[in-house]
Amino acid sequence: MSHNTFGHVFRFTTWGESHGPSIGAVVDGCPAGIPLTEADLQPWLDQRRPGTSRHVTPRQEPDQVRILSGVFEDDRTNGQVTTGTPINLMIENVDARSKDYSDIRDKWRPGHADYTYDMKYGVRDYRGGGRSSARETAMRVAAGGIARKVLGPDITIRAALVQVGSRAIERDRWDWNTVSTNPFFCPDAETAALWADDMDALRRDGNSTGGVVEVVVSGVPVGWGAPVYGKLDSELAAAMMTINAVKGVEIGAGFASAAMTGVEAADEMRKGETGPAFTSNHNGGVLGGISTGQDLVIRFAVKPTSSIRTERRTLDRELNETTIATHGRHDPCVAIRAVPVGEAMAALVLADQKLRHQAQLNA
Amino acid sequence: MSHNTFGHVFRFTTWGESHGPSIGAVVDGCPAGIPLTEADLQPWLDQRRPGTSRHVTPRQEPDQVRILSGVFEDDRTNGQVTTGTPINLMIENVDARSKDYSDIRDKWRPGHADYTYDMKYGVRDYRGGGRSSARETAMRVAAGGIARKVLGPDITIRAALVQVGSRAIERDRWDWNTVSTNPFFCPDAETAALWADDMDALRRDGNSTGGVVEVVVSGVPVGWGAPVYGKLDSELAAAMMTINAVKGVEIGAGFASAAMTGVEAADEMRKGETGPAFTSNHNGGVLGGISTGQDLVIRFAVKPTSSIRTERRTLDRELNETTIATHGRHDPCVAIRAVPVGEAMAALVLADQKLRHQAQLNA
Amino acid sequence: MSHNTFGHVFRFTTWGESHGPSIGAVVDGCPAGIPLTEADLQPWLDQRRPGTSRHVTPRQEPDQVRILSGVFEDDRTNGQVTTGTPINLMIENVDARSKDYSDIRDKWRPGHADYTYDMKYGVRDYRGGGRSSARETAMRVAAGGIARKVLGPDITIRAALVQVGSRAIERDRWDWNTVSTNPFFCPDAETAALWADDMDALRRDGNSTGGVVEVVVSGVPVGWGAPVYGKLDSELAAAMMTINAVKGVEIGAGFASAAMTGVEAADEMRKGETGPAFTSNHNGGVLGGISTGQDLVIRFAVKPTSSIRTERRTLDRELNETTIATHGRHDPCVAIRAVPVGEAMAALVLADQKLRHQAQLNA
Amino acid sequence: MSHNTFGHVFRFTTWGESHGPSIGAVVDGCPAGIPLTEADLQPWLDQRRPGTSRHVTPRQEPDQVRILSGVFEDDRTNGQVTTGTPINLMIENVDARSKDYSDIRDKWRPGHADYTYDMKYGVRDYRGGGRSSARETAMRVAAGGIARKVLGPDITIRAALVQVGSRAIERDRWDWNTVSTNPFFCPDAETAALWADDMDALRRDGNSTGGVVEVVVSGVPVGWGAPVYGKLDSELAAAMMTINAVKGVEIGAGFASAAMTGVEAADEMRKGETGPAFTSNHNGGVLGGISTGQDLVIRFAVKPTSSIRTERRTLDRELNETTIATHGRHDPCVAIRAVPVGEAMAALVLADQKLRHQAQLNA
Repeated sequence: MSHNTFGHVFRFTTWGESHGPSIGAVVDGCPAGIPLTEADLQPWLDQRRPGTSRHVTPRQEPDQVRILSGVFEDDRTNGQVTTGTPINLMIENVDARSKDYSDIRDKWRPGHADYTYDMKYGVRDYRGGGRSSARETAMRVAAGGIARKVLGPDITIRAALVQVGSRAIERDRWDWNTVSTNPFFCPDAETAALWADDMDALRRDGNSTGGVVEVVVSGVPVGWGAPVYGKLDSELAAAMMTINAVKGVEIGAGFASAAMTGVEAADEMRKGETGPAFTSNHNGGVLGGISTGQDLVIRFAVKPTSSIRTERRTLDRELNETTIATHGRHDPCVAIRAVPVGEAMAALVLADQKLRHQAQLNA
Repeated sequence: MSHNTFGHVFRFTTWGESHGPSIGAVVDGCPAGIPLTEADLQPWLDQRRPGTSRHVTPRQEPDQVRILSGVFEDDRTNGQVTTGTPINLMIENVDARSKDYSDIRDKWRPGHADYTYDMKYGVRDYRGGGRSSARETAMRVAAGGIARKVLGPDITIRAALVQVGSRAIERDRWDWNTVSTNPFFCPDAETAALWADDMDALRRDGNSTGGVVEVVVSGVPVGWGAPVYGKLDSELAAAMMTINAVKGVEIGAGFASAAMTGVEAADEMRKGETGPAFTSNHNGGVLGGISTGQDLVIRFAVKPTSSIRTERRTLDRELNETTIATHGRHDPCVAIRAVPVGEAMAALVLADQKLRHQAQLNA
Repeated sequence: MSHNTFGHVFRFTTWGESHGPSIGAVVDGCPAGIPLTEADLQPWLDQRRPGTSRHVTPRQEPDQVRILSGVFEDDRTNGQVTTGTPINLMIENVDARSKDYSDIRDKWRPGHADYTYDMKYGVRDYRGGGRSSARETAMRVAAGGIARKVLGPDITIRAALVQVGSRAIERDRWDWNTVSTNPFFCPDAETAALWADDMDALRRDGNSTGGVVEVVVSGVPVGWGAPVYGKLDSELAAAMMTINAVKGVEIGAGFASAAMTGVEAADEMRKGETGPAFTSNHNGGVLGGISTGQDLVIRFAVKPTSSIRTERRTLDRELNETTIATHGRHDPCVAIRAVPVGEAMAALVLADQKLRHQAQLNA
Repeated sequence: MSHNTFGHVFRFTTWGESHGPSIGAVVDGCPAGIPLTEADLQPWLDQRRPGTSRHVTPRQEPDQVRILSGVFEDDRTNGQVTTGTPINLMIENVDARSKDYSDIRDKWRPGHADYTYDMKYGVRDYRGGGRSSARETAMRVAAGGIARKVLGPDITIRAALVQVGSRAIERDRWDWNTVSTNPFFCPDAETAALWADDMDALRRDGNSTGGVVEVVVSGVPVGWGAPVYGKLDSELAAAMMTINAVKGVEIGAGFASAAMTGVEAADEMRKGETGPAFTSNHNGGVLGGISTGQDLVIRFAVKPTSSIRTERRTLDRELNETTIATHGRHDPCVAIRAVPVGEAMAALVLADQKLRHQAQLNA
């Protein structure tokens, strides 16, 4: 029942606070013999890195990951590989500004975990949100890089931002190549341009907005996942819901399923070239908790950033009524940087499921 | 990594197939000294029982639960109480009709787990869906009755059906007292009447529909849950996603959060009579994975029943193209009977969280 | 942290009290497609069954095991096989005599769990020891039968009683064929005859004795187990220590290792016909927590039965000083019936390790 | 099923290899509000530190532990305290000599995990034993320091070396004050003097020896632990068996129980001044897996160091017969430095049990 560990066979545990000396993750259960260097992980971290456009927090963090254990360069092997022992990843916190924290120390920011941490623990590292900061997700992205190695090249995990505020993309303009060409991970260039304007206006107003992220995984074979309480979709939902500010998750048609009839919703089966082919994918690649071989499709909703420059009413720790406005460096739309985190969480769930599937074979 | 177990400290494991001799659950980790008899559990099962209206499956199952272990009537105590040892619950399968199953044995019903189970395991108990049948949820409801005892009388867990097909309730007509007066667990009598007509039409057409269930929990104190990977909302999402046919889960404002601004979304804090009072509950009672003391609000989407009388295209086990229509006894809207299951899952998550919270105190 | 569950991938959870209606076990994580019927499990239960000689408890329990879920006879398969879903095993308690329990209800039997259960839980099913009775081990033996199926025919698990009281066997007379020819599972017929006399004398005196059990497993390949906290020897030690009345466990040379020098203790390696051959097995088949391919050798010490006809001093529940003598049906040497239980626990640990090993392969 | 994690509620995960850049541990599940600084942990590490006498390895490691997360100095609290978030501990490896490792790279040292790691993983960090080195136990001692804080001042955990080779201490000369006055943690000064001579002789011969460690815990209240598979003695046995080179564990009278009669073995109960008093402690403070309130007494056997200067026969990785003698810096009796490790493991098991006990209360 570890609160800071995710996974069963392929597991990772994160540690560290936003403004402490460093953050890290221990990845345990990774098979041995997988080529792995820091250069394999850095590109994923660079995607999530702050300070890359005017639409995300200007905090400057190089986010250089170090591997402190669990790999070995043996002259009998072909370069550095995993050894089957725990892989400790660490990133130094560089731009953790020393400043006056008395405002967030003594007041609870609405929409933040300040109040609940204080009530639960009686003490919290309030600097930059401490443990509840989205900075923790950097380690998920790093660990997710190892998970991708476990999954191998036949499985492709991609994600995109499909809605910002009330403006959603046009699905018939979806182009995966567009995702890397705009600061929003948006698959639709026209919508991306509109979002840039929306965001500029919000920033001027000291306001923020929510969004929706969609993760698509191709290449998962039929049969991963498990019945009842180990369902693949349940674990994906749990995973996405652990990302900061996420308030909803859906698989396939999701909430739209509720308005469908059984005749419409059926993903009928036909004979394909290499096996069964489905006429649709309303189930998002999962039936009975087990993968069907179709694309996995997961969407999650991210609420607007709670840290805004507009003053909101709150209480201080002595229960006096007061107000607070947050002037630090914050993402006006946390959904943007949640895109690589969503990919990473999908990779982490699937690497675990792959190994769990192996475990249960009658070999 | 047990696939059939849920929970960490308060745990339950279910076993049994739809058409096997019986189904059951082992509840482990229940504190000792809690008064518990079969009569405490039966009312919850009666709510979920099939055959109670024309809108649910006509299968006749008395669903009489027996407690086979873990309780003791000691003349030194006040009646039968839990002993701290595992509580085994069992229900006989009575109306598991002997019939010709060759159709569902040899063909994969679209939208069902037939194909994925076959591919994963190579064999499945196809009778009535076997282990993937919603019959398994009877044991969740029984175990949920024990969870409610662990939570005590100060915590109230209620649920309602808030949407059937594309027709949602009117929220300003919400009346909890109405829920038990119609066959839909609907809190809005007018909408319930319309649903009855909708459902009659669907049944005539051999079709089915989806729906949305809302669970509301009052009385949870501030501080339950945990940061990062043990988040209360993540565990609630995982729990609801394990219910058959659920395709989406949201907490508080959920997907609507995406379209909000930070100014709108802030649940501001004011001084209440007995502590902090919030001006709204867009966060659904959870901040940073920890309960705020407000009502927990969880909604989940249920897809339409896949077993319909209308013929759909599919494959047989030899990969030949064919069609299937399901003529057995099925719920035309599985969301109805998912209402008590949603309540039970909330109770089970919260009983576990209560005990986990106790575990982590500095006593 | 389930108190009544053992294992990680291949897991089982037992439930039930000595004098309740039945006892049972849920085995989860068993691979699908393994042929399994009740007839596969019954022979192991018959070995452990009470009432088979004058040296064990005369309680008459047929111990007929029933499989209530998790298997299916599919006409496409070759007879009844496991389906990958939870296997629930159940045994009725037949000879749970209705009698006057007031003595053990109100007094704590020295050496029993009466006092500790009462202090921990405030209530206990005192009838026949309730949950702490060795009757629970029947379910381990049944679950162990499934574990043997998972391990397959190439792994042989055998156990013997090697010491009763202060009288140990002669190792150079060890003959596995002798084990089934005497009521002690003794591999040395001459010692078995002496034990019979020893036991008769003890019974006459209303006394009891301890013993030592040795478990030997052949055919485990090199590489099962895991470093550091998942060590194979650690899990075997934990497993044996969960058997009632066990007070010590050792692997290979065990406590005798302490008196050895490094020169003596080294299990040197030579080239064998099919791979490495070791000159000795002081390490009992485990190095660094991982199997070497040699025989696993585990020994455990069982204390004398605490339930004896000789009066011992104790307290009642009101802390008054009193005495107690136990006149029920008890094993004068519980180590005898611990022999098949030790075998079962080894099978259960190894089935789990086999599947865990599979999980961690780089496939 | 994490291989590198120990505990359930109070958990720790270690990482790092003997000759990597650093080693560490993440402690998760520690209650908030416990005063904790590096100075609280350092004294325990200093006890285990190498290079403190001629009888242990001359490797020079300052073993300065750093706390990188999970604590906070809040001006509202009284100094630095735990925050309820993961505590990452790290120690730099300083004296990891760069040298020629080709001998242990290509040959399997008898009695070491070289062969089993190679067979399991196909690759291993052979430098100084890598992950299988006893260096990992430094992190147990550090984490154990936190566990002691969780247990509080009323629980005393002490350990001593009671046997080296075939020479055991005289129990009637046992003096806890003597333990810190000799390099063996020996409670009997006369025996300690003889051991010094024994050890000098062994070192001259390029040989090594085993030993027995005894851990005694006072102040544990009645009621910790759990029935059946969560037994306190089972977890203590598992814990001690994870320490490098341990081959046997016993509780209370242990293996001597086997030779006792039930009349002798009964720990009779009398009325004490503040509750029940036992006439003896053959059960070592545990009945039915639950603490009795008496001292916990655990002993474990440590095999002689496998790394010796005397040449032993072995194979190389190409299965050629060869010999090996180990000339590095090694403890001639690893049992000595296992004394503080045994204490730490007891603390870690008990902190976990304390929190698990809290979890299961009917509050």
